[in-house]
Amino acid sequence: MGKNACGNELAPGVMRRLPCYLNYLKGIPSGSGYISSATVASALGYGDVQVRKDLAQISGRGKPKMGYEIDNLIAALESTLGYTSYKSAVIVGAGKLGMALYGYDGFSEYGLEIVAAFDADEKITRDIIRGTIYPASYFSEYCRKHRIDIGIITVPRSEAQKVCDEMVKCGIRAIWNFSPAILSAPDSVTVRNENMAESIAVLSRSLEEMPAGK
Amino acid sequence: MGKNACGNELAPGVMRRLPCYLNYLKGIPSGSGYISSATVASALGYGDVQVRKDLAQISGRGKPKMGYEIDNLIAALESTLGYTSYKSAVIVGAGKLGMALYGYDGFSEYGLEIVAAFDADEKITRDIIRGTIYPASYFSEYCRKHRIDIGIITVPRSEAQKVCDEMVKCGIRAIWNFSPAILSAPDSVTVRNENMAESIAVLSRSLEEMPAGK
Repeated sequence: MGKNACGNELAPGVMRRLPCYLNYLKGIPSGSGYISSATVASALGYGDVQVRKDLAQISGRGKPKMGYEIDNLIAALESTLGYTSYKSAVIVGAGKLGMALYGYDGFSEYGLEIVAAFDADEKITRDIIRGTIYPASYFSEYCRKHRIDIGIITVPRSEAQKVCDEMVKCGIRAIWNFSPAILSAPDSVTVRNENMAESIAVLSRSLEEMPAGK
Repeated sequence: MGKNACGNELAPGVMRRLPCYLNYLKGIPSGSGYISSATVASALGYGDVQVRKDLAQISGRGKPKMGYEIDNLIAALESTLGYTSYKSAVIVGAGKLGMALYGYDGFSEYGLEIVAAFDADEKITRDIIRGTIYPASYFSEYCRKHRIDIGIITVPRSEAQKVCDEMVKCGIRAIWNFSPAILSAPDSVTVRNENMAESIAVLSRSLEEMPAGK
């Protein structure tokens, strides 16, 4: 997975916790000064030793008795997570979910900019929300003309593998899949599934297992 | 976690794999007849023995030499995952992401119906997409009048804990959190975080670790 400032590899478990640290720290009012790893651990329900080790890998040891300067720690986390180097993304599938992601301005906080959207329906090429939606037939030409880092798939299940194949052919090496399809892609391509079905299952089951009442 | 048809507890690992089985099976053209656990295992990259054990817990042993009747297996998975018992949900936060989820019709496939949306901005009470957006001040009264199973949070980080507290107070016991905030809730309430920041980090880092070029 990621590397820290010294170029050392970070374990996947550490990489998974880093966004949680970052979220927590960003929720603290700015100008709050220093924070100890023990405070972070207790707020997130992690082990004290684990947090100390994680943060030491990202940002050194912190100041004795004071801990970490919050703004510095945020900067170190953002850099390690790759949020400070901008990535450009395209969306394929201009349905409601695709359009919502296209119009959502919260991703820039994480260094992601969605630069274009495409749809198989050639008629949907109107200006919408903040940009043009291109016909899918223009996709490969667009990718040749622009550097695209991440492909976002928001087409129905039945179309998703075709879109994935096209993205891979166009040199896209990171795919964010919002469709329920299980995609197959070469090992050199990273596929991240946003599995909303699993989330709904977890929530639904939890309701059925609880005793009725409160 | 979940229980199978005999009321036995299913391990969390099994529960996580079930939506993957279901996705895969739903991608097979209907009327395809039978499928073996070995075929499922190979398609999903799981171990053969693991898939056989998982499916046996959900749907018995299958027919010798033929395997499982696909439609029956889908029905058993949907039932175990809780997709067949409808859950009603409300959204709090009528920004772009909230509205996209409100207007998205793909959740019904998983037994989830979003019945109302609320926003702190009292002026946003127009009919939009498919329903009314109520002012947040009406939230608790709405929850008293309707059975609400799941609360969906799509407000900014700074508002999320307040909304979570309000949901808990109104008797909601399952919360789907799309905000980047880390929520604290009683143990009796299940919180599921849709951590898009983590997804972006994973994709961004993967790009930085790959050798340039193909």
